[in-house]
Amino acid sequence: MATELKGLTKRSVNYSAWYNELVVKAELAEQSDVRGCMVIRPYGYAIWEKIQSELDKKFKATGVQNAYFPLLIPKSFLSREAEHVEGFAKECAVVTHYRLKTNDTHDGVVVDPDAKLDEELIIRPTSETIIWNTYKNWVKSYRDLPILCNQWCNVMRWEMRTRLFLRTSEFLWQEGHTAHATREEAEERAKMMLHVYADFAEQYMAVPVIRGVKSETERFAGALDTYTIEAMMQDGKALQSGTSHFLGQNFGRAFNVQFLNRDQKQEYAWATSWGVSTRLMGALIMTHSDDNGLVLPPHLAPIQVVIVPIYKSQEQLNAIDAKVETICHNLQAMGISVKYDNDDNKRPGFKFADYELKGIPVRLAIGARDLENGTIEVMRRDTLEKETVSIEGIEAYVQKLLEDIQANIYKKALNFRDSHIYECDNYDEFKQRIQDGGFFLCHWDGTPETEAKIKEDTQATIRCVPYGFEQTPGTDMVSGKPAKCRVIIAKAY
Amino acid sequence: MATELKGLTKRSVNYSAWYNELVVKAELAEQSDVRGCMVIRPYGYAIWEKIQSELDKKFKATGVQNAYFPLLIPKSFLSREAEHVEGFAKECAVVTHYRLKTNDTHDGVVVDPDAKLDEELIIRPTSETIIWNTYKNWVKSYRDLPILCNQWCNVMRWEMRTRLFLRTSEFLWQEGHTAHATREEAEERAKMMLHVYADFAEQYMAVPVIRGVKSETERFAGALDTYTIEAMMQDGKALQSGTSHFLGQNFGRAFNVQFLNRDQKQEYAWATSWGVSTRLMGALIMTHSDDNGLVLPPHLAPIQVVIVPIYKSQEQLNAIDAKVETICHNLQAMGISVKYDNDDNKRPGFKFADYELKGIPVRLAIGARDLENGTIEVMRRDTLEKETVSIEGIEAYVQKLLEDIQANIYKKALNFRDSHIYECDNYDEFKQRIQDGGFFLCHWDGTPETEAKIKEDTQATIRCVPYGFEQTPGTDMVSGKPAKCRVIIAKAY
Repeated sequence: MATELKGLTKRSVNYSAWYNELVVKAELAEQSDVRGCMVIRPYGYAIWEKIQSELDKKFKATGVQNAYFPLLIPKSFLSREAEHVEGFAKECAVVTHYRLKTNDTHDGVVVDPDAKLDEELIIRPTSETIIWNTYKNWVKSYRDLPILCNQWCNVMRWEMRTRLFLRTSEFLWQEGHTAHATREEAEERAKMMLHVYADFAEQYMAVPVIRGVKSETERFAGALDTYTIEAMMQDGKALQSGTSHFLGQNFGRAFNVQFLNRDQKQEYAWATSWGVSTRLMGALIMTHSDDNGLVLPPHLAPIQVVIVPIYKSQEQLNAIDAKVETICHNLQAMGISVKYDNDDNKRPGFKFADYELKGIPVRLAIGARDLENGTIEVMRRDTLEKETVSIEGIEAYVQKLLEDIQANIYKKALNFRDSHIYECDNYDEFKQRIQDGGFFLCHWDGTPETEAKIKEDTQATIRCVPYGFEQTPGTDMVSGKPAKCRVIIAKAY
Repeated sequence: MATELKGLTKRSVNYSAWYNELVVKAELAEQSDVRGCMVIRPYGYAIWEKIQSELDKKFKATGVQNAYFPLLIPKSFLSREAEHVEGFAKECAVVTHYRLKTNDTHDGVVVDPDAKLDEELIIRPTSETIIWNTYKNWVKSYRDLPILCNQWCNVMRWEMRTRLFLRTSEFLWQEGHTAHATREEAEERAKMMLHVYADFAEQYMAVPVIRGVKSETERFAGALDTYTIEAMMQDGKALQSGTSHFLGQNFGRAFNVQFLNRDQKQEYAWATSWGVSTRLMGALIMTHSDDNGLVLPPHLAPIQVVIVPIYKSQEQLNAIDAKVETICHNLQAMGISVKYDNDDNKRPGFKFADYELKGIPVRLAIGARDLENGTIEVMRRDTLEKETVSIEGIEAYVQKLLEDIQANIYKKALNFRDSHIYECDNYDEFKQRIQDGGFFLCHWDGTPETEAKIKEDTQATIRCVPYGFEQTPGTDMVSGKPAKCRVIIAKAY
C-alpha cells in the first residue's frame, strides 16, 4: 500500500502520465481485462454518486422524470436517421447470437451457431432511436407533450484508444430525451439544460466552463444545434464536459412521432437530447489536482474531513477518542461527512500522505499536547497550509473552511483559465502558440474548409462559438475572408 | 386516456391477465420492440428509485460500498467455474463484432466481417466472474479483507417467455459481491444480507416473506448455500424475491484470489453474492393490488397523497387553491409527498379513477361546501373507505392514516399468506390441493429424486427449508423415507 503513495509523476514532467497514475493510485478506477472497459472503484464511484445525486435533483427541479429504456437496439433502428447512423454505427458492439454451448472437448464454451439472431442487436451508443421508437406510442395530442425523460445508464462506443474516465468503450452517463409541441419550446429546453450543466460544473465541481454552440462539423449526429460546456485543463487543453442538442424534427420524422397540434393538424414532435458522463470525473481530477494527488471540491468529496490522532499510549488515545467523538458528532449534525482514522496499524505520516493523495479537503490532527492546550491542527488540502487553532468552535471553523476551499479552487481554476485565453489574429502566430495549450479566440469565416485546415495543421479544433464574450466582426485569420465572430479554438481531449 | 381506466380484467377471472394489464394501464412498464426487453416508464421507475434508495441505505449501514464493473465478460471467464457456466452460459447475449458498415445498396447497415472479435464477449448475466477476476489484484493479505462491494446495474439473460418485471431478458438489479478471510465471516454475511432483504420487504414493501435455505437443486450455479426470501402472491403462488449466496472458495479458486492469512499461509478468499431485481416490482404489484388497480405501500409510493378540488366556478377554485396551498406546504414539511391536481381539463370522477388505478394511498377531495363547513373528504386506497373529517388537523390525520395503511396492507397480506400455508402428509392430497395454490409444509427426505418427482407430477417446486417454523422429523410423503424436516413446496413464478 505504502508504495502507491510514492512515485506519482509530476505534472511538469508528463501531464498525461500524472493523470493516468493518479486515477489508479487514488483508487478511483482501473483498466479491466475487457478491452477499453474500466472498473470504477468504490472511492471513484462515491464521487460519481455525489455527481449523480446533485444533477438528478437539478433535473427534477425542471420537471424531468427518470425512466429506463432497453440496452439493445435493433440494427435497423440506427439506419432510420441518416446522419445518426453515420455518426454512431461505425463503433459499436454487435450482438449476433443468444446462446453458448459446451465445446466438443468439453473444456470450454463456444457460440451456438443455431442461436443466431434474425436481426443483430447493437449495444446502445446513445438511445435516441429506441426512445423515439417508444415515444410514438405515448404521443397523440399536444396535450401529451412535453415528455421530459432522463435515464442513468451505461453506453458503449468501441474506442480504439482509451483513457480512464476520459475515453472508455463502456461509460456511465445520463441521457435526457425530451419531446415538445413547438420548435421554440424544444430550443428553450436544449439551452436550459446547457445552463443546468454549466451551473453544476461551476457550483459543485468548481470547474469554470465556457458555454457556447458547436460548429456544424462538431455537432451531434442528427442535431440541428449542439450546445456545449468546455473546460480548460491544467495543460491548457479543452475538455468537452457536457452537451445539449436541439434535434429539430429529425427523430420525430424518422420514428413517426406525430401529434395533433392546437390547430388540429398532424405535426412531428420536436426533440432535444442532452448528456453528461463519467468523463466529468476526468474534468474534476484534471482541473484541481496537484503533484501530491487529488484535490476534491468539498461539495463533491465523499469524505470532507478526516481526523487523525497522534498518540504514544493507549491512555492518550482514549483521551483523544473521547474528544474526537464529540467533534465528529457535531460535524455530522451540520451535514459534514467526517472520518476518524484511529487505525493502530498505520502511522500518522502514512495516513497524512494517503489522505492527501485521496484529496480529502480538510485534515485535522490532534495529539496529547493539543488536548492539554485546547488546540487542534488543521490542514487544508488545496493550499497544503497548516495552522493550529482552538479546539473550541472547531466545527464552525471547519464549516467555513470547506466553503473557503470550494470558492478558492474555483477561483484558482478560473484565474488559470482566463490567463490562458488569447485573442489571436495571425495564423502563423496561432500555429506556434497553440502547441503550448490555451484557448484561442479567433475570427472564423464559418466554413468547414477553414475548420478542417486548422485541424489538419495543428490538431486543434473549434470548440464553440462562445457565449459571454463581446463579439465584433473581423477577418478570418486563415482564409482572410470576413468573419462574423470569434470562436474558441483549442486542442482537446 | 380515459379508456385505459376501463376494462381491467378482474383477478377472479384471470389473475395473469389482470397483472399484465395492470402493469401497462398504470403506466409502470411496457414491452419494447426489442424482444424480451421492457421500457420502465416514469411512474414505475419512480417506485424503483424509492426501492433503490432505501435498500442502498440499508446496504451502506452494513459497510457495503458501491462500485461499477464492466458490462461485457470474456467468454472464457464463464468457463472458469464449472457449475457457473452450466447455469448461465445457455442463455446469454453474445457480442461477436465491433463495427457496422454501410451495405452495398447504401440503404442500411450490415455487420462488418472484418471487425470480428478474437474472443466473444458476453453481456453479463451476473458478475461473479468479472468481479473476482478484478479482486485478485486487490487482495494480498487478510488486512485487505473483507471487500464489500455492490453494484446497481443492468443484466441480461435470454428468456424465451417473458413477463413485465417478473421475467425479462434485460432487467435492473443490484448485485453484492463480498470477499472474506474466513468461512464463518462469509456465511455470516450471506445470512445478514438475507435479513436485510427480508426486513426491507416487510417494512417498506409491506410484503411478508418466508426466509429459508434452498435445496441443492435450486441453488445458484456455483453456490454452496443459497438463502432466499419467498413471498406469496394473491393466487397462492410463490415469488422468489431475493437471494443471498454463500459461494465458499469456488470463485476464489477459479480466479486465483489468494491472500496471506493470519498464520502467514496462502489461502483462497471466501465469497458471497446477493441480489434483488426489478422483479420486486412484480411482488409489490401482485401482493397488494385489486380490481381497481394498484395499491401501493405508503413507504414506497412516489406520491403519497393527492388532493382533488371540486368546484363549479373559478371563484370557488381560487378559494380552494388558497386553502390547499397551506395543506400541501404543511404535508411537505412533514416529509409527505403530495400532489394537488387542479387541472381544469379533467373531471373529478376521471381523476378519482386514475389515482385509484395508480394506487395513490390517500386521496383528499375538497369542495365549496367543505370550505364552508371546515371539512375535507378522505379516501384511503387500501379499503376504498371514505370519510369526511375536519380540515383542522388534517395533516396529522393524514400522517397517521399513511402509517395505518402501511400496517394494514402488511397485515392483510400476512393473514392471506398464513391462511394459505398447509401442513400436508399425503401425496395424493397434495397433488390435488396444490392446483389451487398455497404453500405446503411437507416432510422431505432430502433427495433430488423426490424433488424431481414432485416437480414432474405437479410443476410445484421446493421453495426452501424455511426458518421460523417448528420442525420435527417425519416421513417423506412421496418416498416414505425418513425426513429431517418439512420444506415449503409451492408453484412459483
